[in-house]
Amino acid sequence: MPGSHCTKDIQKNINGSTSAALPSTSPATTLTELYPLMAHTDRQSDHDKPQVDKKEKDPEQATGPTNLQKARARFLKGVSYFSGDMEVFGKWMQKQFFLLQLLDWVLRGAAQVMFVNNPLSGLIIFAGLILQNYWWALNGFVGTLFATISALILQQNRGAIAAGLYGYNGILVGLLMAVFSNAGDWYWWLLLPNIFMSMMCPIVSSALASINSRWDLPVFTLPFNILVCLHMVATGHYNHHFPQVLIQPRSELPNITWADIDVAKLFMSVPVGIGQVYGCDNPWTGGIFIISLFISSPITCAHAVLGSAVGMVSGLALAAPFGDIYFGLWGYNCVLACIAIGGMFYALTWQVHLLAITCAFFCAYLGSAIANIMSSFGLPACTWPFCLSALTFLLITTGTKRIFKLPLAKVTYPEKNLGFFWKLKKQEKMEKAEKERIEKEEQLDALREVVILSEKEQLRLKLEKIEEVRPMNEASEAENDETKIKNHEQQSTKEETRQNTPTDDTLADYV
Amino acid sequence: MPGSHCTKDIQKNINGSTSAALPSTSPATTLTELYPLMAHTDRQSDHDKPQVDKKEKDPEQATGPTNLQKARARFLKGVSYFSGDMEVFGKWMQKQFFLLQLLDWVLRGAAQVMFVNNPLSGLIIFAGLILQNYWWALNGFVGTLFATISALILQQNRGAIAAGLYGYNGILVGLLMAVFSNAGDWYWWLLLPNIFMSMMCPIVSSALASINSRWDLPVFTLPFNILVCLHMVATGHYNHHFPQVLIQPRSELPNITWADIDVAKLFMSVPVGIGQVYGCDNPWTGGIFIISLFISSPITCAHAVLGSAVGMVSGLALAAPFGDIYFGLWGYNCVLACIAIGGMFYALTWQVHLLAITCAFFCAYLGSAIANIMSSFGLPACTWPFCLSALTFLLITTGTKRIFKLPLAKVTYPEKNLGFFWKLKKQEKMEKAEKERIEKEEQLDALREVVILSEKEQLRLKLEKIEEVRPMNEASEAENDETKIKNHEQQSTKEETRQNTPTDDTLADYV
Amino acid sequence: MPGSHCTKDIQKNINGSTSAALPSTSPATTLTELYPLMAHTDRQSDHDKPQVDKKEKDPEQATGPTNLQKARARFLKGVSYFSGDMEVFGKWMQKQFFLLQLLDWVLRGAAQVMFVNNPLSGLIIFAGLILQNYWWALNGFVGTLFATISALILQQNRGAIAAGLYGYNGILVGLLMAVFSNAGDWYWWLLLPNIFMSMMCPIVSSALASINSRWDLPVFTLPFNILVCLHMVATGHYNHHFPQVLIQPRSELPNITWADIDVAKLFMSVPVGIGQVYGCDNPWTGGIFIISLFISSPITCAHAVLGSAVGMVSGLALAAPFGDIYFGLWGYNCVLACIAIGGMFYALTWQVHLLAITCAFFCAYLGSAIANIMSSFGLPACTWPFCLSALTFLLITTGTKRIFKLPLAKVTYPEKNLGFFWKLKKQEKMEKAEKERIEKEEQLDALREVVILSEKEQLRLKLEKIEEVRPMNEASEAENDETKIKNHEQQSTKEETRQNTPTDDTLADYV
Repeated sequence: MPGSHCTKDIQKNINGSTSAALPSTSPATTLTELYPLMAHTDRQSDHDKPQVDKKEKDPEQATGPTNLQKARARFLKGVSYFSGDMEVFGKWMQKQFFLLQLLDWVLRGAAQVMFVNNPLSGLIIFAGLILQNYWWALNGFVGTLFATISALILQQNRGAIAAGLYGYNGILVGLLMAVFSNAGDWYWWLLLPNIFMSMMCPIVSSALASINSRWDLPVFTLPFNILVCLHMVATGHYNHHFPQVLIQPRSELPNITWADIDVAKLFMSVPVGIGQVYGCDNPWTGGIFIISLFISSPITCAHAVLGSAVGMVSGLALAAPFGDIYFGLWGYNCVLACIAIGGMFYALTWQVHLLAITCAFFCAYLGSAIANIMSSFGLPACTWPFCLSALTFLLITTGTKRIFKLPLAKVTYPEKNLGFFWKLKKQEKMEKAEKERIEKEEQLDALREVVILSEKEQLRLKLEKIEEVRPMNEASEAENDETKIKNHEQQSTKEETRQNTPTDDTLADYV
Repeated sequence: MPGSHCTKDIQKNINGSTSAALPSTSPATTLTELYPLMAHTDRQSDHDKPQVDKKEKDPEQATGPTNLQKARARFLKGVSYFSGDMEVFGKWMQKQFFLLQLLDWVLRGAAQVMFVNNPLSGLIIFAGLILQNYWWALNGFVGTLFATISALILQQNRGAIAAGLYGYNGILVGLLMAVFSNAGDWYWWLLLPNIFMSMMCPIVSSALASINSRWDLPVFTLPFNILVCLHMVATGHYNHHFPQVLIQPRSELPNITWADIDVAKLFMSVPVGIGQVYGCDNPWTGGIFIISLFISSPITCAHAVLGSAVGMVSGLALAAPFGDIYFGLWGYNCVLACIAIGGMFYALTWQVHLLAITCAFFCAYLGSAIANIMSSFGLPACTWPFCLSALTFLLITTGTKRIFKLPLAKVTYPEKNLGFFWKLKKQEKMEKAEKERIEKEEQLDALREVVILSEKEQLRLKLEKIEEVRPMNEASEAENDETKIKNHEQQSTKEETRQNTPTDDTLADYV
Repeated sequence: MPGSHCTKDIQKNINGSTSAALPSTSPATTLTELYPLMAHTDRQSDHDKPQVDKKEKDPEQATGPTNLQKARARFLKGVSYFSGDMEVFGKWMQKQFFLLQLLDWVLRGAAQVMFVNNPLSGLIIFAGLILQNYWWALNGFVGTLFATISALILQQNRGAIAAGLYGYNGILVGLLMAVFSNAGDWYWWLLLPNIFMSMMCPIVSSALASINSRWDLPVFTLPFNILVCLHMVATGHYNHHFPQVLIQPRSELPNITWADIDVAKLFMSVPVGIGQVYGCDNPWTGGIFIISLFISSPITCAHAVLGSAVGMVSGLALAAPFGDIYFGLWGYNCVLACIAIGGMFYALTWQVHLLAITCAFFCAYLGSAIANIMSSFGLPACTWPFCLSALTFLLITTGTKRIFKLPLAKVTYPEKNLGFFWKLKKQEKMEKAEKERIEKEEQLDALREVVILSEKEQLRLKLEKIEEVRPMNEASEAENDETKIKNHEQQSTKEETRQNTPTDDTLADYV
């Protein structure tokens, strides 16, 4: 879901007024292309820990380092083919049949909900959805497909479409319209508003990107939130064609007995919370989603789990009904907020890690607030809390360099972002060192010059002394060229010199 | 309602940060002044179809072309006096008595609700309002008048005031405050908040323009929406001074029997929908409004009817109660949205036409959603759905050149906008052709140069050959000036040359 | 509360796109430092009226002007030490122990709610709060303290922190969370969400400043509004841990009998309205707040009282229940809006004064509207009406120079702002005068040159006449230098001149 398309699209935006924002985008794309190796090494070091046993490595490194290193390099190269954003696969796909390409984009779109640009993750996510509910999975697929097609019709940025950035709102629109429909599964008429709303996604995305790009912000799932809320509130619970499930505000004190708490269910709420990002309450589906995240980016995966746990704790702190917590309603927004802040749009440092946790707590609070407000209109909270809290935290400006917001066009996935951040820091350090070196050299040069000058001065003084002596000698060896010429002229006829010397002087003035 | 004042006002806005946006505005006004002729021809071609019979034209063109052409030109010139934005009349008005000018501005303001800058249309619209309800018409007039006066007091842009851009929110505020008042007609106290809110219009317009102009967007009827909702919710249904009609959210399934549908009323809902833009439910009033639109701009008129029809269809699709559809509540927002997108702020191509229809459907959906939400607060939907949907569709960025958003300062009326777009395209094409021509010429020049160079080379070779022969001849014709001079100097006295030549050499160095 | 930190923070904001807005900030801070003297004189002239008796002054000025003037200067210097923004004290504080500094910042933060940057005012305000309720005062103190600490942790702008700009949202969050808690006083658990929300203040402030600074607008109390509403709606009335007071929308006609009106209570509502800015309904507390305002800035104080009165009148006009008016609910937003527009962010002229009163009326209207909407969610209006109305009025652009919006970085307090405005006007006038002077001089110079030229011309003509005569005279007196030299050369040997003159000519060409 990193909205790199925002900054690209904006180039065709209203003329003027964004001229300052543009230069950062063009070099960005080239830069991201330049650092794949570094990013690979980052990813490798992350994959190392769980997959390569340290005990084996150390002794074998002594005996056969070349063999093992080769094997390891081969293994890591293999891993790089299906982890991260599967760049190699994406490039290979560009030469394939259009429908295959479209499938790739749809799968990437499905995974982009979690900020993952990886078709394999998308495939696993679809598997999880099918495990949950066939009808929902179908609606999600239709949504992603038509959102992508609509983006193609509207001639949006091809790179953004290929990264699935126009699909993720579509899958959410399709899924959640099916989830919140009160007409039951396999109510085929639902596909009509589903297709219409999915096709509206790129329009709303493009419009929001025009606004958000002014602050270099992504659009997140705002189009989905807007469109699903639009559909739900336009039809409402009391509708003949497209009735929605009945959601009502709380009007009495919920019955909370702390003795009744079910710790197993509480722990289960962590994967359920991750599943609820796609509206799924099946813990296995949530578990499958965790795997799909891990394949692409372990940092994303860790923050997802952390966010869900934070949401659960917040729910307990704010005395939420246990049912809501078990159902993962307190987790899914925090999952997304924690991923977004923790390494996706900020370069991961431990300060950013703390910020991500703060954001998750804030998001949980906001989630409760928005859910209460929306219920007055018969609406669910959708992912409004995540969008608003993440946008707030991305708008912060601080004096510390440890909280570094990546330019939107350079956002890829946490490991690669980190690589970019390190590269930038190294570059800065080198530039600083270079500057210092130059300064030192300049100082040395200045010193040398002083030395030379003083030597010259001494020579000149010597010369003067000699010249003082000269009138007596009349033919000293230290005479310079000018004086030679003068002497030569003195040797010529007296009349001519009187005429010529003033001409020489005048010339010297004109020089 | 084209908010050209937005970009003009912004020049006095916060210093800095909009510097890039400004240059486009100053040439804009001059450009719009330059293309009246072309715009006239566009308008003419549109007026042709319904008014000049093609059968007559063809034979007569053969027999007496000069006579007919003259008559036609005279007729078209006559049409141009009261269609479009009545530029000639507006310029004539500038020299009139102030109160007459004010009346012109008020009439233009009344028509600007429909994006029409035409006092005749405004007069017809007032006639329609009087047909509907005397009290409402009075309130509308008071609203327009005081909004315009307030804009004059606040020293807003004179051109914008003269185009009625500060009046259209005033007429809506005045009208709708009277329509939604529960105190009955001729409750004279209502004029007090009416005047206050009308005078707030330019303030809110100016503030919103400061924001929207950053994206080169007009303010549409947002000031009206804000101020009427403000008044209604501030007083509410339960108020002693200014009670509002009671609006409550739907809380049960509406009774919809498809057999009961009244097709005549359904068709009548199209003009009623256009009338509802001004809060009028009389189909004759709606019909009068259609005429007033046709006078100024047939494209606007066509899109208004189309929008109203789309709204009606959407209402049926979303299972709305028939009463609402008959009453035109599903139409009026779509009317405005369809006009705004279909030729007013985009240059009309068939892609834009499709976009306008999509926007109308989206607007109908949004209208239902907003009406449901607003009813929770006892508020009507006003024209919020139109504003939000049109702004969304104006913020889109696409890769296709066929969807061309006009710079806000160049927006006039669809026919003239189209002329501007064609002119721009023609210019581009000519520039391209010119570029190609220059490139060709440059190629030719390069070729010629090569030929000349080769000729020179041959000459030089010839020369060299001759010079080789010279030493034998001792007095060849190919000797240049320098050698002549040298020879001349050689012929002068030997002593002088020894002195003078070094001076000459030095001089040559100084040159 | 003047958000000068907004423009300072933004420098570290998203790269590009604000480059144009920046240059105005850097010279701003230096400029504000340069005019303290002028500001002091302004302040003095304001303090004169109530404290120095004019009758005494006039006779004594005649008898002992030096003595009285000295005493007066000493007195005014003394006043300047604790009025205004207590700059001298602030500078002295910079060298003190950190905890003392923190206390200074907390006190300034408490006063910044009313746009007053003065620790003495803050101290008096805390006294007023303690008079109202110990528990509320404690919560307010905790809120201010933790908001300031959080800003320090997030490395926000030190100058802004020292001015209390990160504290004022904290005190409001702390106070109002205590005021609206339904758990009763001394419910210690409340401090937990209090501290969390206070620490969120700088984050939300920083995020909002990133947006608002694009229009050079302050964030006002928006962070407080957002965070308190967030807390209240997230927990709600039906919550085990943090229950809120029950607020419900009006559902029947209030019982208003104009005979029952209590004029004394109506007058008392003016100080109560000022007290309600901090959520206090005690008129004595309100009175203390008025004193604290007067100490720092009499203009602010006058507008606060005026705003509260306007709110009271608006309440009567819109038929509000008398209880609400007596309780100050109609006043507090108008107080803040009237202060903000009347001299704080605009330079005070009588046009701006009228604008401030208009804004106060608009704010009262908006207050009623927002209170009705928020009550649907069980929320109070907070200071949303003030924020929205003041932001609207700050976004206005007008053609008149009498409504001058100060650059955000130069906002201090009304008297000093006025000094800045006068200085600017004087500078403009001087520049204009200077320009005129230069133009006049240029005209004179041009005239003189013409005269000289004509004189030269005449001389030349004379010369020519003489030269015509010369061939006959052979030694005229009117020969100029060149001819003299030539003559001189003519007198030298003929051979030499033949050689030298060509060299001279060539040299003249090279010059």
